[in-house]
Order: sequence, then structure tokens, then C-alpha cells
Amino acid sequence: MDLKHLFEHTLKDIYNSENQILQALPQMESTAQSPELKAAIRKHIGETQQQIERVKTVGEKLGIDVNGVVCAATVGLIKEAKEHLEEFGGTPAGDAAIIASAQKVEHYEIANYGTVITWAEELGYKEVAQILQDTLAEEEDTDKALSQIAKQGVNQSAESNSGATLL
Amino acid sequence: MDLKHLFEHTLKDIYNSENQILQALPQMESTAQSPELKAAIRKHIGETQQQIERVKTVGEKLGIDVNGVVCAATVGLIKEAKEHLEEFGGTPAGDAAIIASAQKVEHYEIANYGTVITWAEELGYKEVAQILQDTLAEEEDTDKALSQIAKQGVNQSAESNSGATLL
Repeated sequence: MDLKHLFEHTLKDIYNSENQILQALPQMESTAQSPELKAAIRKHIGETQQQIERVKTVGEKLGIDVNGVVCAATVGLIKEAKEHLEEFGGTPAGDAAIIASAQKVEHYEIANYGTVITWAEELGYKEVAQILQDTLAEEEDTDKALSQIAKQGVNQSAESNSGATLL
Repeated sequence: MDLKHLFEHTLKDIYNSENQILQALPQMESTAQSPELKAAIRKHIGETQQQIERVKTVGEKLGIDVNGVVCAATVGLIKEAKEHLEEFGGTPAGDAAIIASAQKVEHYEIANYGTVITWAEELGYKEVAQILQDTLAEEEDTDKALSQIAKQGVNQSAESNSGATLL
């Protein structure tokens, strides 16, 4: 087992991860209350579809079948996101909870893409590294956009219903 | 359910997450082959113990019992890390796999702490925000240290066993 095997395994992980995320995003979009947050999630659904296509393209270029792995980390991340949606969805803290869950998923993806891009470069897969770099840039932009939405009002809305009592 | 409830829930999540990570790190340390990687994980075991104490301190300051939540995302992240340890541990790609798993955990924690610090500031918990900021800085340093170790040799060792054939 060498770096090529690890790259191959992680590419399959990512393919499964992106598909799980694509399945989970519509529930987050429909539960979100802020129009800005809904729009950001809707935009990211489109990006995720494109990211899945990029992983397929990379697999075809390198002769890797990207199917066949279940990404356990994404299973956990989405389970947590759904638990938080059930507990906080529709309440004043609902949007803040959705943003937090989405940012954890984004950070997971940023770590994952950052790693496979480094490996692709070391393995001499220059074109592949460039394709995956496009996705990494989108994930970083999504993370920043979510931070902006949180700071512009979602957290304040959640807080304004907190009342004056400290915990 | 408002921002205070969400902060409270997420603090419990983090407490459970850090404890799960503390349980998982020794296996990563013992499986790692590079002395630098072993040392970095050992250092992070000590930091994680201190981070757990900080979460307890925050809980005491705010009257929150930090027990009682299982962090589903961390369950998934550690399940994936263990699967990768089993598949790649002891092979030339073992250390690269350990670093990748550890960085995904670090990124999860960076997202988590970043979020609760923002909420603590908005809720007026200034001292709490400062305590959690110390942990965030450690997580970011750990992530950078792991990237350095990867670039300084672990990936090259994995690659040198890849042979000349492209995938």
C-alpha cells in the first residue's frame, strides 16, 4: 500500500462524501429561514453536482472506479447535522445551527481536498491537481459566505430571542 | 431554542468530541512510523487533555453540565480514521494516512471552536471566548505542524514505494 493506493481510496471516499452531501443539502435549504442562507445552500447544491462530475472525470483520467466506498466520516457529519436540524430547525437558533453544521462539512471537505491535491502533485498528476483545486476554491468560498451570513444577522436573530438571563 | 441553547448543546458536543479524540490518539501514535509524527501526536495528546479541562472550566463558569451528548460527527471521523489505520497502518502510506485522518479531525475542531467562539462573543461571554480561543490556536498549530511533517518526508516515503507505473 503506497501513496497511489491511498490517493485512490481517498478519491472514492470523496466521491461518496459528495453524494451524501448532495442528498442532505435540500433538507437544510428547506429548513433554513433566511433568504440569504437558502440562496447560499441552493448555490452549493449546484456546485456539489459539478464537484461530483469532477471526481468522476478524475477517476476516468486515472482509471479509478470511484464507486464502492462509504465515507464513514460524512455519515457521522450528516447524522449530526440532521440531529441539529431536528432539535433547532424552525426555532430562532435554526439558521445558526444549519450554518454551523454546513461549515463543519465544508471544513471536512477542505481538509480532504487539500490532502488529495498535495498527493496528486507528488504523484505527478498535474491536470488532476488543477481540477481538484477548482473544487477546493469553491469549498473555501462557501465557508466564507456562510461566515458572512452568520455575522450579518442570523446569529443576532437567534440571540435576540435569548432574553436577558445569562445561562 | 435560541443561541444560548445552541451554544450549550455545542459545548457538550465538543466535550464529548475531545474525549473521543483523546481515546483514539494513542493508537495513531503507536501506529505512526516517523519519529516527528509520533512526537506531534504525543504533544497533541497532552494538549487535548488540557482542552478537555478548558471545556469543563467553561461549563462550570456558565453552569452547564458538559456531559450527556454523543458527538455523532466525531464518531464518524474516528471510525474512518480507524478504517484507514487498519488498511494502511504499517505500510509505506501509513503515516500519510494518519496525517490525513488527523487533519480532518483538526479541521472539524477548528470549525467547531470557530463557531462557538463567535457565539460566545455575541452572547457576551468574553472570558469564555478567550479560553476557547487558546484551544483554537492549538488546533490550528497542530494542523500546520501535520502539514509540515507531511511535506518534509512522509509523503515522499510513501511515494518512493509507488514504483514507476502510473495508475
